[in-house]
Amino acid sequence: MRFAVAQSGGPTAAINASLAGVYEAAMELSKKFPEDPRFCSNTVLGVLHGIQGLLEEKFIDLNDSLSDPHKLALLKKTPASALGSCRFRLPKAEQDDSLYHKIRQILEKHEIDVLLYIGGNDSMDTVAKLSKWLLEQGSPIQVIGVPKTIDNDLVGTDHTPGFGSAVKYLNMTLQEILRDCSVYQVQSVTIVEIMGRDAGWLAASSCLLRHNGESAPHFIYLPESEFTVAQFLNDVREALKTNRCVVCAVSEGVKPPDADLFRSGANDEFGHAYLSGIGKYLEKQVQREIGCKVRSVELNIMQRCSAHLCAYTDLIEAERCGMRAVWLAHDGQSGIMVAMKRGEHYDISYDAIPASEAANSIRTFPQAWITPEGNQVTDDAIDYFLPLIQGEVYPEMSNGMPLHFQF
Amino acid sequence: MRFAVAQSGGPTAAINASLAGVYEAAMELSKKFPEDPRFCSNTVLGVLHGIQGLLEEKFIDLNDSLSDPHKLALLKKTPASALGSCRFRLPKAEQDDSLYHKIRQILEKHEIDVLLYIGGNDSMDTVAKLSKWLLEQGSPIQVIGVPKTIDNDLVGTDHTPGFGSAVKYLNMTLQEILRDCSVYQVQSVTIVEIMGRDAGWLAASSCLLRHNGESAPHFIYLPESEFTVAQFLNDVREALKTNRCVVCAVSEGVKPPDADLFRSGANDEFGHAYLSGIGKYLEKQVQREIGCKVRSVELNIMQRCSAHLCAYTDLIEAERCGMRAVWLAHDGQSGIMVAMKRGEHYDISYDAIPASEAANSIRTFPQAWITPEGNQVTDDAIDYFLPLIQGEVYPEMSNGMPLHFQF
Repeated sequence: MRFAVAQSGGPTAAINASLAGVYEAAMELSKKFPEDPRFCSNTVLGVLHGIQGLLEEKFIDLNDSLSDPHKLALLKKTPASALGSCRFRLPKAEQDDSLYHKIRQILEKHEIDVLLYIGGNDSMDTVAKLSKWLLEQGSPIQVIGVPKTIDNDLVGTDHTPGFGSAVKYLNMTLQEILRDCSVYQVQSVTIVEIMGRDAGWLAASSCLLRHNGESAPHFIYLPESEFTVAQFLNDVREALKTNRCVVCAVSEGVKPPDADLFRSGANDEFGHAYLSGIGKYLEKQVQREIGCKVRSVELNIMQRCSAHLCAYTDLIEAERCGMRAVWLAHDGQSGIMVAMKRGEHYDISYDAIPASEAANSIRTFPQAWITPEGNQVTDDAIDYFLPLIQGEVYPEMSNGMPLHFQF
Repeated sequence: MRFAVAQSGGPTAAINASLAGVYEAAMELSKKFPEDPRFCSNTVLGVLHGIQGLLEEKFIDLNDSLSDPHKLALLKKTPASALGSCRFRLPKAEQDDSLYHKIRQILEKHEIDVLLYIGGNDSMDTVAKLSKWLLEQGSPIQVIGVPKTIDNDLVGTDHTPGFGSAVKYLNMTLQEILRDCSVYQVQSVTIVEIMGRDAGWLAASSCLLRHNGESAPHFIYLPESEFTVAQFLNDVREALKTNRCVVCAVSEGVKPPDADLFRSGANDEFGHAYLSGIGKYLEKQVQREIGCKVRSVELNIMQRCSAHLCAYTDLIEAERCGMRAVWLAHDGQSGIMVAMKRGEHYDISYDAIPASEAANSIRTFPQAWITPEGNQVTDDAIDYFLPLIQGEVYPEMSNGMPLHFQF
């Protein structure tokens, strides 16, 4: 069987563990069925830069590097998509299926039986559309999705690979920021802006600090909760009465109705609007309305690519999701996405759901886990998040620096 | 002997290792001289919030917590000043010595023989002024400085504790950012703004990536080099001809003469000037003049407080600097700062220099290590930086999160 595997969407710290899992399972399958002509000599081609690279026939044979156990191990710990990525949406086949024909042609030319696509909502859209079209065309080529996103907003899976390591990074960093901003005697407010344009899972996960005995973050603001600048200022004022240092975790996706100016309020010298994020905006509000020391911190792409201390649970799950996809292919499935189900004692099983369910949908943070005040999350959220960050994976170091795998 | 120890200035990942070193050496001294009434029962008081806390008599007995070996070990790995810090400059004694009298009074009231002050240039100013005044007044109280700063800009020492861990964090993070920004096929420019208002040591240290086989950063811009926005844009344009992803390390302290608008170009809706840093400013220039994908990343306070993967060399040296200060006190010295001297094979010796030498001076990055183009550093810089990041210290973890020490 010839597999092609591609990565798509934003990078994570765990997406390469899924890639490694795909390769490992394909090799395992060959060993398991030495007599079966279909599986006895599996090949895994890596597609560079997702569907876009596929259209340009950018294939590499993963065996060239990953047959080396050291390189395979290194790949699992290396952040960001080693195969490269793309931001690309297939048009609707009903409107124009020329690209679909081209993809099929290329897959057939390279004798590919299964395309595995590691990605988020948009990638599952590709999996759903392409698998449906291929089926309708009578093609036996299978397309299977492997979930990944630090946003944790994929429908149908308990959580997503990559999220756990992002949660761990966020909480460790917030804890360090809390140590840092607590050293002075003056009152201060620290606003940390956290990724999550449509769903507040990552920002919400900062509640784990509370479980770890920390007082911060004092407030957590999510796109799922009602949030106004007025409420924010009231919250902060109130908290400053009893806390020297107030730390707020703010999801980048919050949209305070009383701050519609915040992305268009000012222009730079060229007349371009300042794209000031919500963190910077709230910093200015505190400066103006409260007047105490205030700082905003944007964790930027470090949230998704930091890998010098990953969650072991996350990397293992990412790997198993990749492996599961290969086994689902072996079972003849297509148009599905690997999904994790959580058992009673966090025993994860690796299931599958139709990719169309995950495509273009957003799973938001549960309203039931947001406090009535809309500025914190409940202990149920802690129970949900805590297992995801367990265990540590440290990088392999050489001469004081991490070693990264590169194709 | 009764020691008082305080921390001052900006936090680092190693400043608590120096504090631990002070405590350890004081205890060691007692064991070493069981018959000497002066040293047989040493006490170490911690002063909360530096000189400011001293004036408020905020003392704690370090023995209460640090006699527990587990807590002592945890302290060494905990980022930011565990005793708290302050930003405080003593006035000149010749103009007004009332504060000096008050400090002496408090030190005498608590029967303190030695004040150890862990900090940067400003703190060494305090050490120099206070020790000089006490000597002139005929007081036997000794004042000794222990260096610390991630800026590495202290005169008289090969490097400063805290710097090595910041260098390690910076390089690991830049390496991860490089992985992240390389995944797409489109050309992109990434500008990373790095701490260092007056000296570019930290930004310059990003040359270690080159030693690690990475292509980035393609350019390093320092306050010590001539830097213009025009040159920057030329550099980037040129690099984009042969590189898909161009990464620039920019010290926050660069002052391009052709960009004097950059901190006052625009006002927000309240008429406040936007405090856009150099990174954001250069991002806008690339957007406007080159038009490719561009992102700026501010590493913010994570540069100084990140401690989930520290440099072992740094923490050990920080600890030894603290220990050395106690031994210098034992030798009757005052008005000095511990200084590290580098031997031929990076054998560090712990020396002392007059604190007045380090006070209020800035040691800048050597001109000889900047390339003629002013946009990179030479291999001599790699030789200088490389030993500082060797070895790893991982946090003690509990339930997936680092344990931090707190008084």
